[in-house]
Amino acid sequence: MLNELSNVAALIDAEIENDAFPSAVKPEYLRLAVRDYPCHGGKRLRPALLLWSCGLVDGEIDHAISAAAAVEIYHNWTLVHDDIIDNDIVRRGAPTAHVQLAAHAVKYFGTDLVVADKFGRDFAILAGDIQQGWAINMLLKSAERGVPALVTLALCRRMQELVNRELISGEALDVEFPLRGWRNIGSDDVMRMLYLKTGALLRFCAEAGAAIGTGTHDFSEPVITALGEFASSAGIAFQLRDDWLGIFGDFDKFGKSIGADLAEAKPTIMLLKTFELLEEADRKKLESIIGLKEYTTGQIETVQNLMRGSGAEKYVLDKSAELSAKASSILRQFDDNRYRQLLLDLNDFLVSREK
Amino acid sequence: MLNELSNVAALIDAEIENDAFPSAVKPEYLRLAVRDYPCHGGKRLRPALLLWSCGLVDGEIDHAISAAAAVEIYHNWTLVHDDIIDNDIVRRGAPTAHVQLAAHAVKYFGTDLVVADKFGRDFAILAGDIQQGWAINMLLKSAERGVPALVTLALCRRMQELVNRELISGEALDVEFPLRGWRNIGSDDVMRMLYLKTGALLRFCAEAGAAIGTGTHDFSEPVITALGEFASSAGIAFQLRDDWLGIFGDFDKFGKSIGADLAEAKPTIMLLKTFELLEEADRKKLESIIGLKEYTTGQIETVQNLMRGSGAEKYVLDKSAELSAKASSILRQFDDNRYRQLLLDLNDFLVSREK
Repeated sequence: MLNELSNVAALIDAEIENDAFPSAVKPEYLRLAVRDYPCHGGKRLRPALLLWSCGLVDGEIDHAISAAAAVEIYHNWTLVHDDIIDNDIVRRGAPTAHVQLAAHAVKYFGTDLVVADKFGRDFAILAGDIQQGWAINMLLKSAERGVPALVTLALCRRMQELVNRELISGEALDVEFPLRGWRNIGSDDVMRMLYLKTGALLRFCAEAGAAIGTGTHDFSEPVITALGEFASSAGIAFQLRDDWLGIFGDFDKFGKSIGADLAEAKPTIMLLKTFELLEEADRKKLESIIGLKEYTTGQIETVQNLMRGSGAEKYVLDKSAELSAKASSILRQFDDNRYRQLLLDLNDFLVSREK
Repeated sequence: MLNELSNVAALIDAEIENDAFPSAVKPEYLRLAVRDYPCHGGKRLRPALLLWSCGLVDGEIDHAISAAAAVEIYHNWTLVHDDIIDNDIVRRGAPTAHVQLAAHAVKYFGTDLVVADKFGRDFAILAGDIQQGWAINMLLKSAERGVPALVTLALCRRMQELVNRELISGEALDVEFPLRGWRNIGSDDVMRMLYLKTGALLRFCAEAGAAIGTGTHDFSEPVITALGEFASSAGIAFQLRDDWLGIFGDFDKFGKSIGADLAEAKPTIMLLKTFELLEEADRKKLESIIGLKEYTTGQIETVQNLMRGSGAEKYVLDKSAELSAKASSILRQFDDNRYRQLLLDLNDFLVSREK
């Protein structure tokens, strides 16, 4: 499966790399920023999900390539704007878009750092805005790849009505959490946020692949709905596993440092569930260890014990396993073919990885 | 014509007001921000341009209503992001989107002003992002109004390839100007910027109306190209007239205060042309009167004399008249009907107004 995933990545890299859309963007450094994230993508999981969902229903993979590139570009424009909002400075080992653009302002216009920071953020807003248009344009190019006009229109409608509204609403809720304060967020709120911020685009990927594969423009058809459900379940299962690894993971294997979520006081489901399950005294104890600059092994162990003792760890692992099993059982309702196996393997991979 | 323009405004107000797209946006204050600018629009000139262009080629106005609402929403999302970038605090007599959202943070989350400012900007980025999706969704709804699927697809492609890329590139160039510094911008650079930032969407409005009216999905057809040329010419003529009113207008009639462009050192074509035409001594004199906090009548008169004496005023008025005449002569190539007259009147109105 990982080999096949690399093949998808190579295909999508080329598709995005060779697309002419950014070529007319001015000035040049904005054009470079528009191409940057989409051309240096991660694992291309979303395109794989889309292409394999198309293959699962015996569709022509070729027809789905523009749509697969489109979801990747779509994902990346949201990252550009998220990085501005979150003040993130590193993305995939390189400076984030607004940081790169700020550096450009210093180098080419000789601005001071305050002006450069504003310039970087302003141009990163514009870069993301263009990327949103690029993603839609790429999706529309499906019509040139054998996807009927009515299906292409339905895909583009669904991208707005599902992905745009829900993903951005999810991002908004996520940004709002810290302002609402600990005691006013429940683990259910975070679950809803995840279904919006992460689940909506994954759902669309599977739906779009299935719609292209079956040639339907009705997204309420059971096949489409079922595959959408598979994808969002698998995605949330992954996210829960990721939260767990952030506390219980093996430091050497798990990429980001254990405790980073604690340090930034990220309201994960596991943390909030722990709060909900603990007695007041333990709750106070946990609260005192959140948001520290550095963590000792002893402090991490205290948090681990509270999470384990309260039953929150089990809740999160059970929930992750349940969603993963649901995803898998949806897939098994489809006739077996090589794409079903790839999707089953991908689903397993998402919740079994240790880093 | 102004009466007909009010009718268009009422029609578009209702279309945008009743559209369900924002209803699923969360949280509520983000939903309100998404609806705010589009529901409280200005004169709705862009929708009128689109609808009347459809009528000019004897198309069904009814078919074009979704597209007309779409261009208005599109225009408004760019304003939301522009207002963040330009640090503007007032739009159409009310606080700008990011200022309203910042006030919300103070009122409902009790944040301090620094956190509120960041919150306002972050959520205004997200509001504009959703509005871009809303505009595209509204355009796609044309297919439910009798516009053939292939035409609807072509409209949406054109919205990305013309409007998204060019309008945002124009905005980027405009934001870049102050950093490049006076001496490194020519009046030609500003003219190119205007064709992108203002001209692209106006061109699209006329093209879209004509494409819907004739049922074509080929935007290179002479009728479509000609009407696009009409609209961008009329728009730039208006913009040049607006620059002129900013210096030579009658204070009582002209809405914004005379000299405001000078105070913010806005690189207008008239100002740059004046620099290009003046001798070095006068250039220094002019330079010393730019970017002041307040202007005396004497200082305004000095600027007026330099602009008039250099020939820059004449250049701008001639250019505006030339573009307006070009727009008018394109329209006169079409068979006469009531929409042709409305468009001719609109074209005259744009360059003859005194406020």
